[in-house]
Order: sequence, then C-alpha cells, then structure tokens
Amino acid sequence: MPGEQVLRIIPLGGLGEIGKNMLLLEYGDAGMIIDAGIMFPESDMLGIDYIIPDFRYVIDRMAAGLVIHGIVITHGHEDHTGAIGHVLQWIDAPVYGTALTAGLLEGKMRLAGHSLDKLNVFRAGDVLELGPFSVETFHVCHSIPDAVGLGVNTPIGLIVHSSDFKFDHTPVDGWPPDFAKLADFSRRGVLALLADSTNAEQSGWTPSESTIEAAFNEVFRTAEGRIIVATFASLISRVQQVALVAQRYGRRLAVAGHSMTEYIKVATRLGYLSLPKDLLIPLDQVAKLSPDKVVIMATGSQGEPSAVLSRLAWGRHRQLEIMPGDTVIMSAHPIPGNEEFVHRTINKLFQRGAHVIYDPIAPVHVSGHASREELKLLINMIRPKFFIPVHGELRHLHQHSALAQEIGIPASNIAVVENGTELLLTPDSLTIGERVPGGYVFVDGTGVGDVGPIVMRDREILARDGFVTVVVVLERETGKLIGEPEIISRGFVFVRDANDLLEAAQALVEDVIATYANGDLTTVLQDALSKMFYNQTHRRPMVFAIVREV
Amino acid sequence: MPGEQVLRIIPLGGLGEIGKNMLLLEYGDAGMIIDAGIMFPESDMLGIDYIIPDFRYVIDRMAAGLVIHGIVITHGHEDHTGAIGHVLQWIDAPVYGTALTAGLLEGKMRLAGHSLDKLNVFRAGDVLELGPFSVETFHVCHSIPDAVGLGVNTPIGLIVHSSDFKFDHTPVDGWPPDFAKLADFSRRGVLALLADSTNAEQSGWTPSESTIEAAFNEVFRTAEGRIIVATFASLISRVQQVALVAQRYGRRLAVAGHSMTEYIKVATRLGYLSLPKDLLIPLDQVAKLSPDKVVIMATGSQGEPSAVLSRLAWGRHRQLEIMPGDTVIMSAHPIPGNEEFVHRTINKLFQRGAHVIYDPIAPVHVSGHASREELKLLINMIRPKFFIPVHGELRHLHQHSALAQEIGIPASNIAVVENGTELLLTPDSLTIGERVPGGYVFVDGTGVGDVGPIVMRDREILARDGFVTVVVVLERETGKLIGEPEIISRGFVFVRDANDLLEAAQALVEDVIATYANGDLTTVLQDALSKMFYNQTHRRPMVFAIVREV
Repeated sequence: MPGEQVLRIIPLGGLGEIGKNMLLLEYGDAGMIIDAGIMFPESDMLGIDYIIPDFRYVIDRMAAGLVIHGIVITHGHEDHTGAIGHVLQWIDAPVYGTALTAGLLEGKMRLAGHSLDKLNVFRAGDVLELGPFSVETFHVCHSIPDAVGLGVNTPIGLIVHSSDFKFDHTPVDGWPPDFAKLADFSRRGVLALLADSTNAEQSGWTPSESTIEAAFNEVFRTAEGRIIVATFASLISRVQQVALVAQRYGRRLAVAGHSMTEYIKVATRLGYLSLPKDLLIPLDQVAKLSPDKVVIMATGSQGEPSAVLSRLAWGRHRQLEIMPGDTVIMSAHPIPGNEEFVHRTINKLFQRGAHVIYDPIAPVHVSGHASREELKLLINMIRPKFFIPVHGELRHLHQHSALAQEIGIPASNIAVVENGTELLLTPDSLTIGERVPGGYVFVDGTGVGDVGPIVMRDREILARDGFVTVVVVLERETGKLIGEPEIISRGFVFVRDANDLLEAAQALVEDVIATYANGDLTTVLQDALSKMFYNQTHRRPMVFAIVREV
Repeated sequence: MPGEQVLRIIPLGGLGEIGKNMLLLEYGDAGMIIDAGIMFPESDMLGIDYIIPDFRYVIDRMAAGLVIHGIVITHGHEDHTGAIGHVLQWIDAPVYGTALTAGLLEGKMRLAGHSLDKLNVFRAGDVLELGPFSVETFHVCHSIPDAVGLGVNTPIGLIVHSSDFKFDHTPVDGWPPDFAKLADFSRRGVLALLADSTNAEQSGWTPSESTIEAAFNEVFRTAEGRIIVATFASLISRVQQVALVAQRYGRRLAVAGHSMTEYIKVATRLGYLSLPKDLLIPLDQVAKLSPDKVVIMATGSQGEPSAVLSRLAWGRHRQLEIMPGDTVIMSAHPIPGNEEFVHRTINKLFQRGAHVIYDPIAPVHVSGHASREELKLLINMIRPKFFIPVHGELRHLHQHSALAQEIGIPASNIAVVENGTELLLTPDSLTIGERVPGGYVFVDGTGVGDVGPIVMRDREILARDGFVTVVVVLERETGKLIGEPEIISRGFVFVRDANDLLEAAQALVEDVIATYANGDLTTVLQDALSKMFYNQTHRRPMVFAIVREV
C-alpha cells in the first residue's frame, strides 16, 4: 500500500509468546526487523531441538520489492538472538546490537557461516538510521546487561517498543532505566506503545536485582560446606553478585557449564562483568580447596537433563559430586513447563544430602520483567495514543490490555493479536489486518522444517504404544508362507515377557494367510493384528505388515 | 521382630509424594494399611495410564504370617482410592471409609470384580478396632467432603496421622476440623505425628473455601453471557458454592464431564451436596436458554486433552461451543507438571473470544492443604514426641522438617524418608531402617507392570527420532538380493519429502549386500544405515534390518 500512510506491524512466529522472537515493521517498500530469536519446544513437541519463526512472508515481500533496512536485536537472550543464523540465510540485511548483544551474536553468525561485516555495534542512546525509520535506542533493565528498547520514528509517528524490561532503580550494573528518554518520547507524543506483557499477571512491582543480595549474604554467612549456585547462563548480574559475596566470605569461584563459561568470557572481555583478580579458579581445582572456601556457579536451573545441575543431582558429572553439607541455591524461577524437571532436580539434590535453597523458601531470584505497577507506570509515562501488548502468551496480552484500559486507554485504541496477524497503524487508527502466511518451523538435528504435523503425530503414537512389524515371505505361485512370520516390536510390550502374545500374533498371521480370500493381504494382516493387540492389551501400537512374494 | 516393642511405619510407592498413596503400619505380625491410591504419570512416562505402588513387600510379609487387619481410606481422592482394585486382588482385608469415600470406592471395587462385603462405612469420630490397632478417626477439612485423619492407638503409643488437611474455620459444608479431638490426643500424649507436607513451602494460612465466594459473586453479578466453571471433578464444595451463586443470579446449572457427573451423583445421593430443586438441567438443554441464564460446570481444569474444557478450547466438543461473551472460570490451580497444558487451554479460550478468569487474576480457587502457619499450629496442638512429615515430595518433607525444628522439635526426633524406606518407632526412639523391596508399577492399558525401563527407553527413542525398518530377501545360494530392499519409516523424516534420503538408504543396503564379506549381515546393515542417517540428519532413529533367505 505505498502512498497510503500505513505502518504495518507484524509479529512473526507461531504459538507461544507474541512478537517476541521476531517483529516486522513495514512502511511501503521499507522494512525493519526487531529480534531474531528461537522458541523452545513444549513438552509434547517430541524430539524437536528448537523452533524458529516461519518468516517466508518477509522473503515473499522482499521478492516483491520490500527492502529490509536492518535487523535490530534488543538483547542477548536466545529468544531474541537464536535464529540469526537462519534469518541471515534468507534475509540480507545489516544486524544491529549493543556490544554485549553483538558479542553473543558473533558466535552464532560465525557458526552459520555468515560474515561479521553485517554486524553493527551501537550504544544505548545511539540513533540508527534504517531507511525511513530513525531508531532511537534507549537503555532498559532486564536479566541480561545492555538491553535496549526502541523509539522508532516512522513517517506516521513515533512508535515505542519496550522490549523485555523491568524498572530497576538499583540494578547490579548501576545502570538504571533511561527514564529521561521515556519522558522525552512522551513530551514529543507517542503514536503507539508496544510493551512487554510477560508479567502482566503479577501484581505489584518486580523487586530489584539488588534485593537478592541479602539472601545470598545470609547463605554465604552460614553455609559450612560448598555452595553451588545454579542460574541462567546469561544472567551476568547474578555472576557479579555471587562474585562479590564470594569475595566477602573468602570463597573462590568456579564455573561449571559450557554456555555459562561462554557468557562470562564474552561479558568479561567487553567489560560487563568485573571479577576480582584471582577469584576464579578452574573447576578441577575445586577438590583441592576446603569446602567452605569455594562456590561453584552452574547451569541447569531449569532442570535440563544434560545441564550441570541435573548431572550433579543424578550423580552423572565427571568432575563434581554432591556431598552432604553442600548448599545449592536455585537462583532462577522455573520457566512455565519446566516445573516438573526443576522439582525433580531439587528432590534429587535433597536425596544426596544437599541443602537446597530456592524461592519461595528464600528470595534468591527475581524476575527480569516488569510487574503490573511498572506496566502502569510505563503506559502513564509514555501516554501513547495506541497500545499494543506484546512479549507474552495470549493470556498475558489480554491481561495487559485490561490493565491499560483500567488506566484510561480506550479499548478501541488497543489491539491484541497473535503471531502472524498484521496490525495496520495510521496516525488516526489501529486496526487488525490479515493473517500473513507462516507460523513456526521445527528444527530437529540438521533438518529445518521437515518435521511437521505428520511426523509429530507418528512420534506421539510411537511414544504412547510403540510399534509392531511383521514380515512374511510367500511363495508366489501358491501363496504359501515360506518360513515363519518374523516380528519386530519396540515400545509396545516387554518382548522378553510377551512370548504368548507374540506367538499368538504369529499364529494369527499364519491363519490369515492360510484363509484370506480377497483384499490386500498387507491391510488384512495389519487390521487383524491391530484388533488382536487391542483386545489383548488395550494398547494401539502402529502395526506394519510387509509381504514379499518370491 | 515380635517381642520387641517396635512399630514399623513404611510408606510404599516410588517416586513422587511420600506416604500418600499407601502407608503400612506393622507391629509384630499385625498390620494395617492407610490409603490405596494411584499416582499420575509424569510428562516423560510415555504412554502410561497411571501408576500404583508396588506392594510386593506386603504380600511377602503376609506369606510369612503378617495379618492385615484393615485398609483405611482417609478420603475419596484418586491418589488415596484409585489402587483399591489392585490392592484387594492381592491383599484380602476389610476396607474402611466414610460414607462418601465408600460411595466412591464402591464403583472401583465393582469394576475390579471385588465383593462389596469387604467395604465398611464409618463416621468421622468412630473408632475402628483393627487387631492391636485402635483407630480413632477424626474429621478434617480438605478439598473433598468427609475426609478424616487417624489417631492410631498402638501397643507402643498413640500415632496421629493428619492425612491431607487444612484448618478451615468456614468450610462450605459447615463442618470445621475436629480441634477437640486434636486437643484430646495432645492431652493423652502423642508418640508420633505424621502430617501433610504438600504446602510446606507456602507461607501463611491457606484461605478458607468460603473466601472464594466473593470472587464468584462478582463474576455472576457482571457476566452477560454464559458462565463456565472448570474445576476438579471431586471438588463437591465448589459445586455447592456455584449452585448457590447460580440460584442467587437466576442461572440454571448444567454439568459437563463424566467423572464430575459421577461425583455429583454419589455426593447428592449420600447427602454431601444439596442442590436447589430444578436448578440442574441436562447439558443438551443449555442451548435453549438465554446465555445469561446458564452456568456450566466442567472438568478439564488441568488442561487434560480429553476433558471437557480442552475440547471446548479446541472446538472439539459435541454439544457445546465457546462463544464470544462466554466467561470461563478456572477454579483450580495447575497441579505441578500441568502448567503448560493449563496455560495453553487458557490461551485457546481467549482466542475463541471467551473472558477467562483464574488465580491470580481473581481469587477463584484455594488449596485444600494446610500452609506453614497451619502446619505449625498442628504440631503445637499435638505436641508429638516424634515427627514424620509425609504427603509431599522430598523437598516438601525437608521444608516441613525445617519448620518443625523452628518450633522446637529436635532434629533427632524427626525422620524424613522416601517411599520404600521403613521407620522404626519405639516409645523412646525413631530410627530409619532398611529399604524394603518394591517401588512403583506402571499400568498401561490392561498391562500391570509389564512396561518397565526397557519399554520406556524404547518409547523415548521412538518419540525423539522414530524408526526405520529395512527388509531384504536374499537368494540363499548366491546371497544375491531378490527384488528391492523395502523400507518403512515413521517419526524419523517426512517420508513424502525424503525420497533422496530413502533412495540413498536403499542404495546403501544394496551396496552393503553386494560387498560385505563377513559378520552378521543384519548388524552390518543396521550399523551402516544408522551411521548414514546420523550423518545426513543428525538424528538417531531406531534402525532394524530384517534379512530373509529363500
């Protein structure tokens, strides 16, 4: 629609959080992308490694003339950075990030074989000129340093995007949110605000990062053995806090876990993390120190089976072992869906004699997202004409919308949409447009998008009841069986104890072959076996018959 | 150990909550069992219907002379009743429950083919004489009516078992906890207290059932369309509350969901639920009433895919459809592990235009378990010599133990054990004994215990990467292939788009057959294919080769 004064805002991706992994702004033939992240599979997405937004719409539009003037990454979390390799494979555009974000993007771009020439580093406060979009970046506090929000000056007006944020007056890095910039936007007039809805169900104000120090101090003051702190690999401020308390109580710090080591390396190199000299020790030196002289920071706060903490909990770590007297701090909240794994890990740690400390037992973690009072403050500071809740599941967006209405934004000036639905913004209106093609794409091994609903459905059936395959060889002329039917089964019954059932299956196959009159023998066999298995076991394995004639 | 004054207390079962599904008391050759329930499978227990405690230890002891004098069921929830059919198959003993509990046990016993002669109904306050155990039952409040705790007079002293409870001063059925009995126990002296640890991480006092009425009233007062209330099928008091508010606002009540209909039927017949005359309407009458004249109570508050609410959310219910203007109240908290399904259901309901109300958006549910201040009160009222936290995961037991220590129970008088570990109690000591044989048993279809670690492991692999089966027929004399190799694959790649890969597999098979010199051809083929598949896809499907010679 060139000519018309319409800005199209399109959150891309499928299920899950809206506008978080990838957001497209389109004005005529000019476009920009905000974030390029991945989603993590839900528990019933069997075998999937991760999920990327399906951005075929962008590719199609580019073929029709759309120019993407830049991809701005707001911060270094995987759900904002993780798809950069895939995106650059199809969308040739410069990438922008603050120093830490760019430092973390580098590795991903290198891995995917992209030139780092495309990567541009900016500082919060810088203005990025991306075609018709003049993007004023501003510092926000979040659970990773150097995160930014964006004030996008477009031909139809100023759009403010909070990205993930909280209003932390005492952040660990001493860098509070850029309230002055928000006030400045407000003064200039904001057409639309896009704001983080993650904690729109949480009343009150998210506590400052600094508030957890007291709880950490108390643990370090009283713990007699080793201390192990599990948190998100990217939670640099937590590393900083633990380092300071460790120094206070004369403990050395070791780091366990590849991803955390990587984050710490990048953050230290770029000056986001300042560790006292001689504080860090290699993990293999831990055993040489007295237990009360050491603290270990580890990954695995989400109970991920392959991360350090799970390996410790199940006794499968090569260098470390949980001992009675150890204190484990779970310095993270379970991400929804991970509760079961997290709780299991805590139980296992208790079982090995560790003392485990976690919220709500002690306030050892705070969220990186704004709660309801902060969300109200943001809206009232910005005073936007239109409001678009983003970064949350649909329920969070609805709660955020209700909150905005409570403080005076008319319902008609708010739009709640799901990923893949375009919003049409003009100086006078915000309307919900069409659905664009796309959704999400499963990545499984090296396969991008080849695992779809059919493979997934098969995996579900196999997961539930397994399969049975029967192979028979027949004499072509007589139709008689040569040798015995051969049966392979997995995930259905415990084969060693199911002789009777499998012999009955063999007999049934022989019987069917001897007596069947017409129809496709393969189908007849499969139906007969499925029925027999269900009658005997009330299970429905996949059943395959392979009939070869010779 | 007859002769010695030792009471053995053994929580039976495996993972999960301790002492909840089944608890054995043994004194010499006399025994009694408390509860006979099931566990629900965790998300990675693929295809499992439910889990029962492995009580082979009891059977072995009975063979050696142990007499089980009774099975006392404390209340009607599945995790206390659901295994009764399995238990009675092996353990011939009288079963005791209050009227509602017995009413719910009846169906299960009938289904499993057991005579109802074994079932004995008591009233809270009655004393059951079970061999050397004189069991004083006492009323407790919980999220199902007619729940009891037990004061077990044993030859070595009085043992009090709270079972699942909360201290509710204003329960919906008007029947507060039996504080007088607790005080009486205390006066007489309690050797050991076993107490519910479920909410040992929750500070404060669990709100009364009655407190949710205000939130319900507000919804009913303001809702303009239909109201749908989803809760646990067994939460009779919630049905009672909804019925009263419905009557107040002139709405008729329909019930959707087989299990809830059953609970309501039994509870009404036995007088635990008193519904105003003409309030109930059949579900198929709902469409004939104006939306503001109806409320529907439904199962599915845990997001279970086959329950009513999920079917509504996904548009798969035969009689009902969610319409814009509907208000859905999620009157339940997600049971840990169900969060993802519950949240997905809420998102889908919003997507269909419903207004969804849930805690913490509005206080429309309260827990049925005591929080920390109640737990302190119980301990201080009972003043036991020894303390045994039960009914919770290991972490809850540890928190409950810490809480007991805070209020003066010495750590040496507290024992935290997992299921399958015996506790030895004497008038002077509480010690942790041996592990007894057992654990838990998977029930899958009609199979009890046949699905074990090997089948489970196979299901995990199949769920992650599927399988590939190759069938080849060879000429016995020459070893040459007859016809082409046949390949079946599911859950690995999308077969229709994977021609190249499958043709490569066929070619590889032909090549291996043509060139292999020694070793087992089946193994050689499987190894070659596995390697090729991993190189091509980074996935590891199960690979089977079937070689037939003719």
